[in-house]
Amino acid sequence: MPRAERERQMMDAALRVFGSRGYRAASMDEIAELAGVSKPLVYLYLNSKEDLFTACIRREAAALIGAVRGGVDSARPVDRRLWDGLTAFFTHTAEHPDGWAVLHNHARSGGEPFVAEVTAMREEIVAFVTSLVAVAAREAHGTPDLAEREVAGLAQALVGAAESLAGWANGDAGVSACEAAATLMNFAWSGLGDLMNGRRWSPR
Amino acid sequence: MPRAERERQMMDAALRVFGSRGYRAASMDEIAELAGVSKPLVYLYLNSKEDLFTACIRREAAALIGAVRGGVDSARPVDRRLWDGLTAFFTHTAEHPDGWAVLHNHARSGGEPFVAEVTAMREEIVAFVTSLVAVAAREAHGTPDLAEREVAGLAQALVGAAESLAGWANGDAGVSACEAAATLMNFAWSGLGDLMNGRRWSPR
Repeated sequence: MPRAERERQMMDAALRVFGSRGYRAASMDEIAELAGVSKPLVYLYLNSKEDLFTACIRREAAALIGAVRGGVDSARPVDRRLWDGLTAFFTHTAEHPDGWAVLHNHARSGGEPFVAEVTAMREEIVAFVTSLVAVAAREAHGTPDLAEREVAGLAQALVGAAESLAGWANGDAGVSACEAAATLMNFAWSGLGDLMNGRRWSPR
Repeated sequence: MPRAERERQMMDAALRVFGSRGYRAASMDEIAELAGVSKPLVYLYLNSKEDLFTACIRREAAALIGAVRGGVDSARPVDRRLWDGLTAFFTHTAEHPDGWAVLHNHARSGGEPFVAEVTAMREEIVAFVTSLVAVAAREAHGTPDLAEREVAGLAQALVGAAESLAGWANGDAGVSACEAAATLMNFAWSGLGDLMNGRRWSPR
């Protein structure tokens, strides 16, 4: 078996173990057993538990970002782009629950190098969403411009809402990716749509 | 000094250390030094690092939930209740950055007992927000009812958005609690408001 293929098997096994147990409780014995190889071979190929976890974070982050970007066609209207991006996000997190658990829960816990990895991924997603919201603001007619700062805040809100709904959808509620995307799109788009058209909420 | 007062001092010191370093990297030496007591006294009063961290989580969770609930007057209109609750949330998290860091970041990382503590707190907040959204849906006129499941999803989205914005506001952007609350209220209420009135987004 080629080395790349063998490494992929080890990382698949590692992801399942990290996803269910977290970083600290995961054992290299269990990962090796699940991958069907000896523990020394795992160390030879992937060096250490830390490097293996880092490799899992990077692979899963790249896959998630690729899925979201790949799901969005920049020729479509911006609300449709948001819908497509959200659908791609919830579909990917539903199909890769261990990857999502590693990125969203376990990586934050392992300490600094892992936190930095997922922070970079999250910033890339926030930047992508920020650009979508900014395009929507530009496209809206007769609108008082949304400040750059407010666009940044809206993107943070949208990403946080999506993270929370991914946990909800992957939990016990039996919520489909499409349902999660529709819930968030209804919540987000109508609100953003009102904002784009200068309709703001204010305390009575 | 009475024991309760001494314990409070130790927990204040512990919170600062846990908040800046996380659970694992925090040292009982540093906590004792910051509290101005001997390390054996910290162990005598609060038993172990695990118990001390648990006590911090519980105190901060109770304070946060108390601030949000206390900020909301059930006699007011439901959009105003949401605004007041969000303002209370962002004000509290801005004034207690270590508490928020412990609840939102560090507790998830420490392992099972800590995760269970913050999960319980989050579920209480989600339940509170769910009841607000359900009231809003009931109060809206001429509306196709929102399904209970959708109300639950909207509450998850709102809580996730608030968590994300609290991190943004506590970061480098210099965002005030009022600004964070206004951003989220505009995002959320206009969206919810449209939903309550039967205006849904759908893909073209």
